[in-house]
Amino acid sequence: MQLRRVRIVGTGKYLPEQEVTDEELDRRLHVPAGWVSKATGVGVRHYASGAETSSFMGARAAEAALADAGLTFADIDCLVCTSGTKEQPLPSTAVFIQQAMGQQDSGVPAFDMDATCLSFLNGLDVISYMVDAGRYKRVMLVATEIASKGLNWSNKESAALFGDGAAAVIIERSPEGESSQIVHASLKTYSRGARFSEIAGGGTRLHASNYVAEQPEPYLFHMDGQAIFRMASRLLPAFIDDMLQATGNQMKDFQLVIPHQGSAMAMRLIRKKLGIEEDRFMDITRNHGNTIAASIPMGLHEAIKQQRIQRGDRVLMIGTAAGLSLGGLIFDY
Amino acid sequence: MQLRRVRIVGTGKYLPEQEVTDEELDRRLHVPAGWVSKATGVGVRHYASGAETSSFMGARAAEAALADAGLTFADIDCLVCTSGTKEQPLPSTAVFIQQAMGQQDSGVPAFDMDATCLSFLNGLDVISYMVDAGRYKRVMLVATEIASKGLNWSNKESAALFGDGAAAVIIERSPEGESSQIVHASLKTYSRGARFSEIAGGGTRLHASNYVAEQPEPYLFHMDGQAIFRMASRLLPAFIDDMLQATGNQMKDFQLVIPHQGSAMAMRLIRKKLGIEEDRFMDITRNHGNTIAASIPMGLHEAIKQQRIQRGDRVLMIGTAAGLSLGGLIFDY
Repeated sequence: MQLRRVRIVGTGKYLPEQEVTDEELDRRLHVPAGWVSKATGVGVRHYASGAETSSFMGARAAEAALADAGLTFADIDCLVCTSGTKEQPLPSTAVFIQQAMGQQDSGVPAFDMDATCLSFLNGLDVISYMVDAGRYKRVMLVATEIASKGLNWSNKESAALFGDGAAAVIIERSPEGESSQIVHASLKTYSRGARFSEIAGGGTRLHASNYVAEQPEPYLFHMDGQAIFRMASRLLPAFIDDMLQATGNQMKDFQLVIPHQGSAMAMRLIRKKLGIEEDRFMDITRNHGNTIAASIPMGLHEAIKQQRIQRGDRVLMIGTAAGLSLGGLIFDY
Repeated sequence: MQLRRVRIVGTGKYLPEQEVTDEELDRRLHVPAGWVSKATGVGVRHYASGAETSSFMGARAAEAALADAGLTFADIDCLVCTSGTKEQPLPSTAVFIQQAMGQQDSGVPAFDMDATCLSFLNGLDVISYMVDAGRYKRVMLVATEIASKGLNWSNKESAALFGDGAAAVIIERSPEGESSQIVHASLKTYSRGARFSEIAGGGTRLHASNYVAEQPEPYLFHMDGQAIFRMASRLLPAFIDDMLQATGNQMKDFQLVIPHQGSAMAMRLIRKKLGIEEDRFMDITRNHGNTIAASIPMGLHEAIKQQRIQRGDRVLMIGTAAGLSLGGLIFDY
């Protein structure tokens, strides 16, 4: 266990205006009616318009989190963007979120943390040590993702899974006498799976200037779902056992499990490996799709708003990410 | 002050094989002989070949740091890439560094932290809280940068400044009775300067698939040196005063100042604002150029190797970064 006296004081989310249904994607992907619904289990996902940049969405989610907590930006002393994608290669997305909130002269430190789909979970884990130590009093974590721009439409399975959106979470040190705390967290990375899901082009190895319109694939999202499934299936049981042993918990101790909403297949795998009932497993896939690193904080936001967790409840957040990484975090809300 | 009982136990660096002199750049940029040397004060910078990827360079620097510390990879329990550029948009560069070190089954957590040129300084600041708390026993921080692929050759001033390379630093908790510690750190971000230095294209806002060979500029590095200079000049004095007041230090207390090697102009500005003599100001510009976030840890590595700092010496690392951010960290080596 690595207890940190940190509590979540507000959450917010933003979904782009454009809704895209499974039926629309059936037509776009030229597949039989019902194929997307059966393959992905999504229903509706959202795609960002040009005006809905990553920073725009992140700023709106951040403002919603401030309102939820009854705070203003002046109460925040650090802004961390915990996304798996970036608005532009340089500078960091957190800078543009600060700007989109109209706080360009605030001086509030702004930087990015990236562990792909586990960016929020890992960011919460890492930054909680600073909050517990009193370095930053109150930190805004923002995960904001536009998956739709990088989809490979000839890879139907992955193209149909993703949605865009943002979620924000504010943390602060728990007051004396309150039970809110982070109990334990773990991140494991096995780069044997580094290329199981990736966007190869657009960075320093394969620069955008090498882009050829006739061969866009290296600049689009590639996913080998079967390889990820096999590797995750093999690694998850020991990972979960280690988490539970570290805290002396059993699955029945968790009021709710909030998984990364990777895919219906990934969600079934995690639920099966955890051995947990459906009603204690947060599933927001059906109206969000896989929103990359925004997925877990969106699930957290919905869990709080739907009153599926109350102050004092023990909660497990867990998922897998490109890397291949496994991550989990246990907290008392 | 925010003391953390953390010490630097090993450093390493890697420079690409290809050296590029000011004279070669005079010819490449079609400027009179001596122009590059006068404008940049660099001398020699290094450019990475295709085989020298960000992860390749980072892995070699990391191995050098392990050798320097008398450790092996098995002694490391977290790998953080603190670079301002990424090898590819997804997954994180730290994953590829783990892979390039042949540690693809290690499970060692690997993620990225990005505060552009201050990524290492901020990463050291943030992660030191985890090390002090005992969450990770020993962490490898790696900054690895390829600037040369994104230079805009029609912007002569900025094109001539940069070099490629990597640096790695291993930190651990200081043993009882040792004086090594991080004393204080500060990061401030003013997004009014968000576009003073940037690479606009290649992320989610302006995707690589929009690249047009006839108009490559949005995908290349843009820098408004004068605007940065004006903003940094205005903000630095109070920033430095706050750092010194927080620790009760005066400039004479620092054995050495290790600045971000942004440019000769930026270095002169910082040295003037600090009011410090040349012999206590680490300048490695002349054989490295500006290596983005690798610049400060390379300066640290050279300072240790050249025996310009000894155990117990108080050191100030300081710089500015795209954002616009100001950062400083005071430590007792």
